[in-house]
Amino acid sequence: MAEIDFWYEFASTYSYPAAMRIARVAAEREVKVRWRPFLLGPIFADLGWRDSPFNIFPLKGRYMWRDMERICSALGLPLQRPQPFPQNSLLAARTALALEGEARAEFSRRLYHAEFGQGRTISDRAVVGEALASAGADPEATLARAESQENKDRLKAESLLAKSLGLPGAPCLVTSEGEVFWGNDRIETALDWATGRRV
Amino acid sequence: MAEIDFWYEFASTYSYPAAMRIARVAAEREVKVRWRPFLLGPIFADLGWRDSPFNIFPLKGRYMWRDMERICSALGLPLQRPQPFPQNSLLAARTALALEGEARAEFSRRLYHAEFGQGRTISDRAVVGEALASAGADPEATLARAESQENKDRLKAESLLAKSLGLPGAPCLVTSEGEVFWGNDRIETALDWATGRRV
Repeated sequence: MAEIDFWYEFASTYSYPAAMRIARVAAEREVKVRWRPFLLGPIFADLGWRDSPFNIFPLKGRYMWRDMERICSALGLPLQRPQPFPQNSLLAARTALALEGEARAEFSRRLYHAEFGQGRTISDRAVVGEALASAGADPEATLARAESQENKDRLKAESLLAKSLGLPGAPCLVTSEGEVFWGNDRIETALDWATGRRV
Repeated sequence: MAEIDFWYEFASTYSYPAAMRIARVAAEREVKVRWRPFLLGPIFADLGWRDSPFNIFPLKGRYMWRDMERICSALGLPLQRPQPFPQNSLLAARTALALEGEARAEFSRRLYHAEFGQGRTISDRAVVGEALASAGADPEATLARAESQENKDRLKAESLLAKSLGLPGAPCLVTSEGEVFWGNDRIETALDWATGRRV
């Protein structure tokens, strides 16, 4: 079975629809998805950005929010802008990384729903705890693992790996040969590539 | 018949595959395409950019060139990087604007082929003249119209209109209600939208 890495950032708007639809699109093509949360901060810092490019460049921000409205509407997903934008995603990424397999995917979807579907604050432990509970994970035990030094170091290593892979943003799909596809709108192309379909 | 505006910039890489495939994709959906050449320079200047973002941010440039290789390969299009990149597209845009209807579309495709298919210099009058001749237009008469004050002013006005529409880059498709879709990878979605299909 073909496999693909799904690199996502909880502060990233387009990662929200991508996270909500990738399981279905991958199942249609029989591709196994590995969910890999990471932090864009170090990558953006190298570009000279200390904020979301959607804030630094308001033209791009205006386009993105209208585009998100259309995309979410077409997918039947609610959309609320969290305040502030972008959200601090450190705790969210650490928590997702402290889970494995389907629990990580389900927690991630629940937390994206809270953030962009309900406009809630994902740096709030209570919000993260609710998403954990609704995904069937133990909130207290998972948060303890999330904040262990080992897990913090693992997130740093994952984010460094993302940078070394040349990811220009989030979400990205990376095939086993290292082909990078950037954006919610490239999920189908990336999954087709993973199965050997190149046209 | 639904109509859509196709805003393109001759210096823009992703405008090349978009220009080469839009007629087919639009015909499948029975949408009429209006080709509207413009200059991104004034828009990028507002963002603080005096060069292509793919040069300013090498991470994005590396991704884009690999992505272009994949896209062109899938479409059966040749790809050669013109030197320098980006090309000065002023004469090209003026010349396209001096043509109307199908002559403008065909000239544009011929010139994109010279630029990104063969790596030629599109600020060279001989290259523009060849593209005009191969598209069935009179090179001398068209270049004279292209460089008339009236046509120069028209290109300025078109580029100001593009900025006022909020185009964040090129290519963009804009529907009659003003919905903007940015990118070669959004052509299908934009054309579907123009026909009333929103999912």
